[in-house]
Amino acid sequence: MKIIQHNTIAETIKIIERPAQKNKEEKISTVKSILQNVKTNGDAALIKYTAEYDGVQLADLAVLPHQITAAAALIPIPLQTAIDIAYQNIYKFHEPQLTTTNSITTMEGISCYRKNVAIQKVGLYIPGGTAPLFSTLLMLGIPAQIAGCSSVVLCTPPNNNYVLHPAIAYTAQLCGITQIYLCGGAQAVAAMAYGTATIPQVHKIFGPGNQYVTIAKQLIQANGVAIDMPAGPSEVLVIADAYAKATYVAADLLAQAEHGADSQVICITNTTEKATEINNEIHKQLAALSRKEIAAKALENSYIIVVDTITTAMELSNNYAPEHLIIQTNNAIAIANDVVNAGSVFVGAYTPESVGDYASGTNHVLPTSAYANAYSGVSVDSFVKKITFQHLTEIGLQNIANTVVTMATAEGLNAHANAVLQRLNN
Amino acid sequence: MKIIQHNTIAETIKIIERPAQKNKEEKISTVKSILQNVKTNGDAALIKYTAEYDGVQLADLAVLPHQITAAAALIPIPLQTAIDIAYQNIYKFHEPQLTTTNSITTMEGISCYRKNVAIQKVGLYIPGGTAPLFSTLLMLGIPAQIAGCSSVVLCTPPNNNYVLHPAIAYTAQLCGITQIYLCGGAQAVAAMAYGTATIPQVHKIFGPGNQYVTIAKQLIQANGVAIDMPAGPSEVLVIADAYAKATYVAADLLAQAEHGADSQVICITNTTEKATEINNEIHKQLAALSRKEIAAKALENSYIIVVDTITTAMELSNNYAPEHLIIQTNNAIAIANDVVNAGSVFVGAYTPESVGDYASGTNHVLPTSAYANAYSGVSVDSFVKKITFQHLTEIGLQNIANTVVTMATAEGLNAHANAVLQRLNN
Repeated sequence: MKIIQHNTIAETIKIIERPAQKNKEEKISTVKSILQNVKTNGDAALIKYTAEYDGVQLADLAVLPHQITAAAALIPIPLQTAIDIAYQNIYKFHEPQLTTTNSITTMEGISCYRKNVAIQKVGLYIPGGTAPLFSTLLMLGIPAQIAGCSSVVLCTPPNNNYVLHPAIAYTAQLCGITQIYLCGGAQAVAAMAYGTATIPQVHKIFGPGNQYVTIAKQLIQANGVAIDMPAGPSEVLVIADAYAKATYVAADLLAQAEHGADSQVICITNTTEKATEINNEIHKQLAALSRKEIAAKALENSYIIVVDTITTAMELSNNYAPEHLIIQTNNAIAIANDVVNAGSVFVGAYTPESVGDYASGTNHVLPTSAYANAYSGVSVDSFVKKITFQHLTEIGLQNIANTVVTMATAEGLNAHANAVLQRLNN
Repeated sequence: MKIIQHNTIAETIKIIERPAQKNKEEKISTVKSILQNVKTNGDAALIKYTAEYDGVQLADLAVLPHQITAAAALIPIPLQTAIDIAYQNIYKFHEPQLTTTNSITTMEGISCYRKNVAIQKVGLYIPGGTAPLFSTLLMLGIPAQIAGCSSVVLCTPPNNNYVLHPAIAYTAQLCGITQIYLCGGAQAVAAMAYGTATIPQVHKIFGPGNQYVTIAKQLIQANGVAIDMPAGPSEVLVIADAYAKATYVAADLLAQAEHGADSQVICITNTTEKATEINNEIHKQLAALSRKEIAAKALENSYIIVVDTITTAMELSNNYAPEHLIIQTNNAIAIANDVVNAGSVFVGAYTPESVGDYASGTNHVLPTSAYANAYSGVSVDSFVKKITFQHLTEIGLQNIANTVVTMATAEGLNAHANAVLQRLNN
């Protein structure tokens, strides 16, 4: 990692700017043609793309109930136990997010309330690859289950070894998901956005993915289907003071770096000695990692920044708005109060980011690319609409009538005033 | 309005499909060039567009504090009183939306919590025209104020009569907004998205507008600035049974129809007699309205649907997902429990939609165009991020270590396991 000396916020933020995504226009045009093809040709297009991109010739897109059960039965016991514990923790953290709100009497005779109503049809996209991300399925499936979405559709690409990966099948069962389809990439997003003969259309699509998946989500969002949030490469920022153990900080930076060559990891510390110590430790630990080539590539976009004070470190972090923020300082809990922009925060020496990725209870689907300035991570809120209701009695309408008529008239909306007056005059 | 007989849900939903927006591709290309021009030329581009589109040659985009005070002083007393009452009701309904959540111990030594943190910089767009929508400023300014956004930027087009409309100035003062700029349309969205020498860049942009404004919001959303929601023409659906007063129903339909020629109003009733009665009443009331030409135009896209039962009416409404739903039936409160998709619901004979537009307390910035399937209206939630935090003690890490290591290993993420093991082995 490059070690740099902090000068001004503007200068440092410029240096650590996230790398631009390459060939975006070209990818947009590829994705547009995939969306159009799926819209027109449905299942046939999906089967063609799956053969082409995943190298699997499918007879059927749907995974049948007996196939799900058979796949789930293949899960090794230790992994099953681990997933069970993670499920319990994530459920426990997310359950209270489904709030009920009391009716509020804003004036005599006027009651207003908000009600959480589950989005009826949601689609979850879980990327594949050598090891499908069953942890992400927990992060999306549990809040959908708590919200009470009546139709939960899961798309995930097939792989060569199994009809369905045992951990995906097992996790889907835990989350009560029965509609599973073997379909990946931008074509899976298209299928859930438009619907095909096999795959049902949904109202909102969730889940991470590569740049094609992200572009597909952004395009369908502009056409009326909601998405969880835009997603870019994963990232971490670690604030470490002289008390921080370089071995822990290095391990956390590497855990993020192994996600992908386009990941960015940032460390901010207040001594040059700690910066050097962390950098040395990174190179020591890197050698032992299975994904060391990927991590080494990510480290090329990555920086250790030396600042004067931890206050400046936090100011920089709030400007960068990291997806994950790890605070490894003497008084980490107090410092955490100053976080303004971040997806999820990991407080103290014994809180590596990987606990949040899997099992502490918080959600790991988080805003990247500085979206943390305005977006929250996924929660039960993401799976409900909050519908407002109001009920007025005759007294209530009398109490508010003059106010409404005056305002409507001032806005030139005569018929709005008339809707009140028709009732008053009766 | 056309009266149609309901047959199947699919058929009726097809008939009442919202009219497609015209020339969308052409408008997208116009908006793209506006965005690019503002990005490149900043204030100069804004001043040029304001002369061109609003017919006003501005010396300065910013409204100075003494100008805001002077404009606010011109508000007529009855309107001031009405706005004060509306402010109180809306504040009262929105204030409890700023929740604090307790820390949850998911396992011994693992505490997780979510914290509401205001989005720092928000931009509010208030359309102009003959009467600027001060009511919309209440609906956006109050939740921003409750959330505690540190920078609230307001853009609204100038008009010829005033530097700033008195009601806008007065409402801005109530909401504590001091950064006001005379700028409208897609160029205002561009200014807040990119920032200019005068207008600050923001993280999220709120507010309704015409199709150009909506397209601008959708385009900047794909480039990293958040938006409240996509907006289409306003719409209402009224469910009325034999008990409903045709005069009230007609007035509510017309109140929506006067918004714009592209508005759509739908009424569903369970007798042919009521349908005819409502239709006759509409034509009677229409004649007296100041915006009768606009309303008449909107009625061309509008339908009265005759169904067998109110249960079918609600099923149709949930399929249509109206922005506003008015229930005027004998047992309106009970029927309101069956609402699944709607922006805001108006329950009972004495609850015209116009009370929610101005002063009942609920928010009037709501999802149109069937976005109510997945989106909520604006609330304090729209102005905060919910950041998650976790803190583990040494015991906490020991309790979860095996779970995390097992899951990370199964996903092939060796460095994630290492971040836990480095700490355990110490």
